[in-house]
Amino acid sequence: MVAARYIGNKGFDLVGEELAPQVGEVRLNVGYVGICGTDMHIYHGVMDQRVSIPQTIGHEISGVVAEIGADVTGFTVGEKVVVRPLDWCGDCPTCNAGHTHICQNLKFMGIDTPGAFQSSSTVKARTLHKLPAGVDLKQGALVEPLSVACHDVRRSRLVAGEKVVVLGGGPIGQLVAAVAKSVGAEVLVSEPNESRRAFADELGVKSVNPIEQDLAAYVDEWTETKGADVVFEVSGVKPPIDAMTQIAGRRGRIVMVAIHSTKPEIDLFQFFWKELELLGARVYEAEDFDWAIELIASGKIDLKPFISSVSPLTDIGSAFASMDGNPEGMKALVECNAE
Amino acid sequence: MVAARYIGNKGFDLVGEELAPQVGEVRLNVGYVGICGTDMHIYHGVMDQRVSIPQTIGHEISGVVAEIGADVTGFTVGEKVVVRPLDWCGDCPTCNAGHTHICQNLKFMGIDTPGAFQSSSTVKARTLHKLPAGVDLKQGALVEPLSVACHDVRRSRLVAGEKVVVLGGGPIGQLVAAVAKSVGAEVLVSEPNESRRAFADELGVKSVNPIEQDLAAYVDEWTETKGADVVFEVSGVKPPIDAMTQIAGRRGRIVMVAIHSTKPEIDLFQFFWKELELLGARVYEAEDFDWAIELIASGKIDLKPFISSVSPLTDIGSAFASMDGNPEGMKALVECNAE
Ligand SMILES: NC(=O)c1ccc[n+]([C@@H]2O[C@H](COP(=O)([O-])OP(=O)(O)OC[C@H]3O[C@@H](n4cnc5c(N)ncnc54)[C@H](O)[C@@H]3O)[C@@H](O)[C@H]2O)c1
Ligand SMILES: NC(=O)c1ccc[n+]([C@@H]2O[C@H](COP(=O)([O-])OP(=O)(O)OC[C@H]3O[C@@H](n4cnc5c(N)ncnc54)[C@H](O)[C@@H]3O)[C@@H](O)[C@H]2O)c1
Ligand SMILES: [Zn+2]
Ligand SMILES: [Zn+2]
Repeated sequence: MVAARYIGNKGFDLVGEELAPQVGEVRLNVGYVGICGTDMHIYHGVMDQRVSIPQTIGHEISGVVAEIGADVTGFTVGEKVVVRPLDWCGDCPTCNAGHTHICQNLKFMGIDTPGAFQSSSTVKARTLHKLPAGVDLKQGALVEPLSVACHDVRRSRLVAGEKVVVLGGGPIGQLVAAVAKSVGAEVLVSEPNESRRAFADELGVKSVNPIEQDLAAYVDEWTETKGADVVFEVSGVKPPIDAMTQIAGRRGRIVMVAIHSTKPEIDLFQFFWKELELLGARVYEAEDFDWAIELIASGKIDLKPFISSVSPLTDIGSAFASMDGNPEGMKALVECNAE
Repeated sequence: MVAARYIGNKGFDLVGEELAPQVGEVRLNVGYVGICGTDMHIYHGVMDQRVSIPQTIGHEISGVVAEIGADVTGFTVGEKVVVRPLDWCGDCPTCNAGHTHICQNLKFMGIDTPGAFQSSSTVKARTLHKLPAGVDLKQGALVEPLSVACHDVRRSRLVAGEKVVVLGGGPIGQLVAAVAKSVGAEVLVSEPNESRRAFADELGVKSVNPIEQDLAAYVDEWTETKGADVVFEVSGVKPPIDAMTQIAGRRGRIVMVAIHSTKPEIDLFQFFWKELELLGARVYEAEDFDWAIELIASGKIDLKPFISSVSPLTDIGSAFASMDGNPEGMKALVECNAE
């Protein structure tokens, strides 16, 4: 048993302390764990107030059922699973209304509680989704970010034939583009970085550089003055905040996926004038995991191009360093058990 | 025939030129016309770019059918009607999608085209809604602003038992509060002006002074930490823009009724964290007029307290002057034909 723990200031140590599953829990032999933007933020120390150093982080998890705790039914040792890394209270008004993913006391695994950069991990059985035969553990580690995209698209009420603009072609934006495409929408990704525009092109969606081209004029022409039906803000920076209200058409839906820690100025007049909708989207619900797994299993979305690198757990430090400020990288996986 | 025309700089003149109804039009003997915030803006000269001086303004209209143009069916001389003062193109993508009230070429009667501060007015028959026997022409003149409130509440998907905060207790905010109450919601109006808070109290809804009290703390206690289900921003000023994201609960809907001409800073993080929705709302659709008329006819909403004064058309200048910067006034009516 090996666990990597974030120890502050871009550092990790390796320890070993295998836990037995408690009541309602399952112990997994962890397969692959993806490195996401939040993990990079933790690595850079900007979330040291929220994590408890030293802490095992990591929340994009695939694994194999290794041990089953008391009161758990429906699982068999050896099954491939992925983890929906949310721990909700089940008792607040929001949970009672059925929105457990935004529970008023939500804990996020890998940030607020221990995560999965370790060979063995105990998790609540209610967080598990089974992987069908055709989906391997590498793709399984991408179910979590793909579920973010599924949730965003579901929030947007997107239907086939609609025109979609994705602002920001990072891993999440590209996955949103892929899910929107799978629904039958026409998709445009706005992204200044050349390699990320090339990635969108490979995915089979249009892309535009908003620094070199007038995005509003482009969308106006593309949509024959109607404007975009749906806009996803997935950049997290300010310039697209002005663009989003410009390019959305009347009754357009804007989904706020990105996490904006500052308070940008927003053109509220356009909300009135065009009856726009702004829809906040946070993580995912169980049905988003089901949809994501189905999209992979059916071949509707091919996640292989998203996997930039696979590193052993003992090289976790260099896996993080390789993603640091590297727009070429989409998703780095850490292999937690040599197969 | 007498028509009052806005001639710029808080001035009106009186002229007379009765028009015959054209194809598809009806001529009305105008009953009462309300003065709204937009009329006050025109009066102050801030919309001189949009109106064509001299111009007859006024768009909150009741009247009696006086003459029926060619190709108009379904109307009888002497019937009481109200006007939905929108002129849509019927041919743009938005009209084709059924959203004629936000038509890409929308003209608003009384701003973009002649309005109704005159004894006789020709209007397109498709803009008319009939008033049932129990609804008089004075109340009829308030159907237009009440329809704004109906549209706002419809956009919010409000259901009985939900907790609503209305930010701003002007005429529109109070009408929104009344419609929300009629749906069975619990309503709180946030309004600094004492006489307007007293108006809310008379209406039978709670009110709070956001300058003297901590609105967020108040709502937190009132909703037992859940937050408001629906927030209507009807103030048009900046402080409530911060309040709206604070007081809305998880999955809360915020309806943007007010017209913000500057771009305020908005706490987008809350949209992500609580999965908030921001819904722009502009004027009304035909069903909002139907609902407003039904609310008056059934006695569910009593509009009499909203009528602050009734002035003859020849006194239009003093009617406007009496509303200028007067928070005690809710709705001033101009009587366009002595009965
Ligand atoms: N809602 C959720 O639950 C959830 C889940 C995961 C991530 N997120 C958020 O989603 C956002 C995207 O995540 P990511 O991992 O893809 O991040 P990322 O930083 O890799 O991607 C952002 C992209 O925006 C591009 N960009 C920069 N300026 C731009 C501009 N002017 N116009 C368009 N694009 C521009 C960048 O080049 C980059 O490719 C982040 O804010 C992240 O915090 C939210
Ligand atoms: N969406 C539409 O189609 C539509 C239609 C009509 C009016 N409007 C808009 O609705 C808004 C309200 O119209 P109105 O005629 O009632 O205007 P109003 O100016 O009479 O009302 C605004 C109220 O907000 C109050 N207020 C000021 N500071 C406040 C604060 N900090 N917190 C709470 N309230 C505060 C004011 O005292 C005032 O009573 C305007 O912006 C108007 O342009 C929109
Ligand atoms: Zn909860
Ligand atoms: Zn139109």
